[in-house]
Amino acid sequence: MTGQLTGTAAALYDHIKDLPIVSPHGHCDPSWFAGDAAFSDPAALLVIPDHYVFRMLYSQGVNMADLGVGPEGQGADPRAVFRLFADHWHLFLGTPSRVWIEHVLYQTLGIGTALSPDTADAVFDQIAERLARADHRPRALFDRFNIEVLATTDGALDDLGAHVAIRDCDWQGRVLPTFRPDGVLDPGDPAFGSNIAQLETDTGCDLSTYGGYLQALRQRRAYFISRGATATDHAIEEVHTEWLTDPEAQYQMIRKGGGNAQAFYGHMLIEMAQMSVEDGLTMQIHGGSRRNTNALIMDRFGRDMGADIPVATDWVRGLEPLLRRVGNSTVFKLILFTLDETTYARELAPMAGHWPCLRIGPPWWFHDSPAGIARYFDQVVETAGYHNLAGFNDDTRAFLSIPARHDLWRRCVAMHLSGQIDKGYFGRDDAERIAQLLATDLARDAYGLAR
Amino acid sequence: MTGQLTGTAAALYDHIKDLPIVSPHGHCDPSWFAGDAAFSDPAALLVIPDHYVFRMLYSQGVNMADLGVGPEGQGADPRAVFRLFADHWHLFLGTPSRVWIEHVLYQTLGIGTALSPDTADAVFDQIAERLARADHRPRALFDRFNIEVLATTDGALDDLGAHVAIRDCDWQGRVLPTFRPDGVLDPGDPAFGSNIAQLETDTGCDLSTYGGYLQALRQRRAYFISRGATATDHAIEEVHTEWLTDPEAQYQMIRKGGGNAQAFYGHMLIEMAQMSVEDGLTMQIHGGSRRNTNALIMDRFGRDMGADIPVATDWVRGLEPLLRRVGNSTVFKLILFTLDETTYARELAPMAGHWPCLRIGPPWWFHDSPAGIARYFDQVVETAGYHNLAGFNDDTRAFLSIPARHDLWRRCVAMHLSGQIDKGYFGRDDAERIAQLLATDLARDAYGLAR
Amino acid sequence: MTGQLTGTAAALYDHIKDLPIVSPHGHCDPSWFAGDAAFSDPAALLVIPDHYVFRMLYSQGVNMADLGVGPEGQGADPRAVFRLFADHWHLFLGTPSRVWIEHVLYQTLGIGTALSPDTADAVFDQIAERLARADHRPRALFDRFNIEVLATTDGALDDLGAHVAIRDCDWQGRVLPTFRPDGVLDPGDPAFGSNIAQLETDTGCDLSTYGGYLQALRQRRAYFISRGATATDHAIEEVHTEWLTDPEAQYQMIRKGGGNAQAFYGHMLIEMAQMSVEDGLTMQIHGGSRRNTNALIMDRFGRDMGADIPVATDWVRGLEPLLRRVGNSTVFKLILFTLDETTYARELAPMAGHWPCLRIGPPWWFHDSPAGIARYFDQVVETAGYHNLAGFNDDTRAFLSIPARHDLWRRCVAMHLSGQIDKGYFGRDDAERIAQLLATDLARDAYGLAR
Repeated sequence: MTGQLTGTAAALYDHIKDLPIVSPHGHCDPSWFAGDAAFSDPAALLVIPDHYVFRMLYSQGVNMADLGVGPEGQGADPRAVFRLFADHWHLFLGTPSRVWIEHVLYQTLGIGTALSPDTADAVFDQIAERLARADHRPRALFDRFNIEVLATTDGALDDLGAHVAIRDCDWQGRVLPTFRPDGVLDPGDPAFGSNIAQLETDTGCDLSTYGGYLQALRQRRAYFISRGATATDHAIEEVHTEWLTDPEAQYQMIRKGGGNAQAFYGHMLIEMAQMSVEDGLTMQIHGGSRRNTNALIMDRFGRDMGADIPVATDWVRGLEPLLRRVGNSTVFKLILFTLDETTYARELAPMAGHWPCLRIGPPWWFHDSPAGIARYFDQVVETAGYHNLAGFNDDTRAFLSIPARHDLWRRCVAMHLSGQIDKGYFGRDDAERIAQLLATDLARDAYGLAR
Repeated sequence: MTGQLTGTAAALYDHIKDLPIVSPHGHCDPSWFAGDAAFSDPAALLVIPDHYVFRMLYSQGVNMADLGVGPEGQGADPRAVFRLFADHWHLFLGTPSRVWIEHVLYQTLGIGTALSPDTADAVFDQIAERLARADHRPRALFDRFNIEVLATTDGALDDLGAHVAIRDCDWQGRVLPTFRPDGVLDPGDPAFGSNIAQLETDTGCDLSTYGGYLQALRQRRAYFISRGATATDHAIEEVHTEWLTDPEAQYQMIRKGGGNAQAFYGHMLIEMAQMSVEDGLTMQIHGGSRRNTNALIMDRFGRDMGADIPVATDWVRGLEPLLRRVGNSTVFKLILFTLDETTYARELAPMAGHWPCLRIGPPWWFHDSPAGIARYFDQVVETAGYHNLAGFNDDTRAFLSIPARHDLWRRCVAMHLSGQIDKGYFGRDDAERIAQLLATDLARDAYGLAR
Repeated sequence: MTGQLTGTAAALYDHIKDLPIVSPHGHCDPSWFAGDAAFSDPAALLVIPDHYVFRMLYSQGVNMADLGVGPEGQGADPRAVFRLFADHWHLFLGTPSRVWIEHVLYQTLGIGTALSPDTADAVFDQIAERLARADHRPRALFDRFNIEVLATTDGALDDLGAHVAIRDCDWQGRVLPTFRPDGVLDPGDPAFGSNIAQLETDTGCDLSTYGGYLQALRQRRAYFISRGATATDHAIEEVHTEWLTDPEAQYQMIRKGGGNAQAFYGHMLIEMAQMSVEDGLTMQIHGGSRRNTNALIMDRFGRDMGADIPVATDWVRGLEPLLRRVGNSTVFKLILFTLDETTYARELAPMAGHWPCLRIGPPWWFHDSPAGIARYFDQVVETAGYHNLAGFNDDTRAFLSIPARHDLWRRCVAMHLSGQIDKGYFGRDDAERIAQLLATDLARDAYGLAR
């Protein structure tokens, strides 16, 4: 995806391409930076952990175990995995995965050989050679990538040991945790009971009462804040919030394994929002993904294995109870991420163009792609403007792809703004200002990351 | 949004830009034209009544009372309001509001200073100077705007005094009422009971029976027709119609404060359609807006304050009972307006491409914008053609923005048709003919406004 | 729609425009090729059977009987019908129907006069002259069109006599049946009872048990396979599948006119999928069309008369039970066709990018059009790639329009791929390879038509 921009778009891209990377939401492992060990091998880096990659191969009949995925894939030969991937490289034509991986190979890693079935071994060897170098260790890459700040996603019960280690070492990289409490809020989570027990142990709070439960949650939030967190995150299938008149009673039923899980979780989202008003953590809701729709794959390979599928989402009615309680706050920030693009123009843009707390998150997951980004701008800006957007985040666990993803976003921003100029919406000066907002400033603001 | 069109698009725009304005649906106040008093001040004209404007400022933390809105805003200094608006002018980059307001300022009012925080006072003064002139009174502007006809929207109980005054004065402007009966049809309206009582008083009909109720409605429709009305209008959140087997019984329950409000309202929409078959009034349905979702704002500022949010809409099942009774009529016209763009290609275009009565209304509200209009043409024309569209209407209470809105539509029409020529759909001659249809003729036809 | 492509798009189109036509799904009548009689007249060929045509005319007030449609249209003068159509030719501006019919008239039939109200008789005469020639008989046109294979759609009880006749004659054209069993699977079909009785008679199976019913279905599938079928087809309004724990009990209730029709049909879809795993027939599901919404038209003119309207569709939850049973099969192929374009990016592309069995069918019905095809590529490719698509099918009963429809698809493919090159997705060589996939190869593969 390089060398394609011309004219005004190229100029706007030049204006922002070298800005630092602000990465306020993603799934990198903080222990990479705490330990700074070399990445192991090309397959473990580029194929095995990337659900965009193995889902496509699986859809065309490739056995996931042969790709080294999951328990069955343990012990797969990395070189054989990489060959199998290269054999199916044509499947990715037209997908952002191909764009990202090409950027990683040819720009980030400086591989000089084009990937194809015939060059799999040569490319594998070149990548492996790079990974063995000291200048390709996680911290060195982080610095070279010009990452200003990187937020990880961490369970509410995480001790944040890696984050503490990063803070206490002599490396200056800014890696922050994000508070992801779904495991201790959602009674539908199979581990909910044991999570609550651990929450009680960790906090020393008395979880036999609802008040104690809230106190434990507040304590965990405070702990995350003390370790640098500026945001929380929730992933929910159906967007549902409701305010219970007697949460204590519901809590007691939930504790005994009964109760209404959806109602309780919907209530707790409002409690979380109210705590955000108090403690200032920006709240994120990723809504509308139906998880683990393939039972066979779930049983054999576990979660996050490519069978999470979006469903239609009703943000208006789903969020109404939450917004009625806290939506008029001017200190609260709530960022919404959707997989149902029909809600961009119909729901999210009108909502964000009214409620002071709301920001629209960037195109997420399947829609973090050139056409997806174009649809996003086309459908949100006219109603919400630019200042109700939350900028970009890469949302990735593929560390090496972070520059590729931000670069793609910045190219798409430049193309969008060039088109806006052509339509007469505004001139070059305004476009440059908005380009910088979209590249870095809106994200810093939405997540409270400015220093 | 000026000076941007080139080539064929510019030529097509030139072909239609000076056609008269046909404005068959909107929310201007007829008393402006009955009294012809000068507009009071720039804030009262451009900021305070425009929910597109204050919703955006509110979404970024501006207090609505400081903008002069609502009871709490009474007595706000117009100059201070205008300054606050100018301070946030950058928020509107990329929105049609900015395009419209720029058109109003620089073209309609001839202001020579670009609006910015630094120029707020200067621009305010220049606008105020214009408004004081005789040639900027409502009737003079109406004539200068080359408005062929302007329809207002009037409650069923309105005495249409302003309309009578306009008709009886020596000014020749054509201002027509539109029959909006929701207040006397929807038992869910808090004022329904008192409205019905007033309907009985006004008409002298006996509303103790369903037959008397229908008679009163017929009488009000006839009164509106006698004052020039050619259309009715309904605004409903969920599109629902049904034909009751015993409406009398339901009516009696409703009168006693019971009954099924949705069923009754759904039935009355069919009765209205049947009356339209009899009396020739074009029927409009604006569907899918969830009103007043922000209870705090509703309590403090009232209705229409920016918290109306679209929801997903099912036109197919919702209208089926109505269409089964009157949809095959070739004299009945029913214009549908949606806020759920997913229904353009999926529902409205196939429906309008079959049922003789149906016309698709132009992009409405949040979608009356360059990208919104492009999506509309992209998604409706291939299935419905052009002749099943209802042309354009501005749907505005911002009188000064009417030329801006029609101009933007005509520019977008020219761009769309230029693209169709490029795709080989048709040649320049057909494009010019369609341009005129979309600019004026289809609206005249759909609303029966030809003389 | 000719002569419009330039540059890379024109070159890509040249690369594929003369490839043979692979038509794996449509509604041509096999008896045309078995008997090879001349087509009767221009109205019977181009107007009366084309619901795209008469629905548009009906929507603008034309009486369908005057168009020769249905029982009331019997005996209409073909010339008068054609004149009425020509009088309204302007209604089709901007629709694919106009593009297709122009292609048929000016390229396929070589008519030298442009269709208009004034030329109706002249064009009628020229068409009639062509149809009388031996080189315009069905088989000659089939050969001239360069059709490699044409699949029809045939009820499960069809004796496939025409197909047998085609196979046994000396003409080499490849015309195959498709197994469409809805009439013997869906208890909601008014003819279900009599269909089941005929199924029992035809197969000699004992349909008093569920096992016998399954056996009869297997027998019919085998018969279709023996006559060349490679696929099945289902048309359902609401996508619903479920696996019954006791299908025998449900079957017995259904046989007595009771039971749960939706549950039974949803179960039978899974049985069909399982039989496909066994016998290799590719399964097609056309979902989301609400049939016969206009009761008056249904009563007077019958089915397929233009009042079938799409509704919102939930493929994720609807197919989940089926996919859980057979979705991980690498030999099973299931092609999904949607009329709800919101499911392209939200549901179908993520699903097809995971499940080995799934392929996304081409834009269907209302969306088989230039803008519809552009939206399709824009929304499916980035997530599903190209190899999870099923290529193109024309889905038409208008035999003469087959070259027009494939030509339009190929032009749109060329435009799409040219745009992808411009965006930097891939180069010319890859684009040429993908163009051929989309024109012919993916369809051959998805339907098992390669020889």
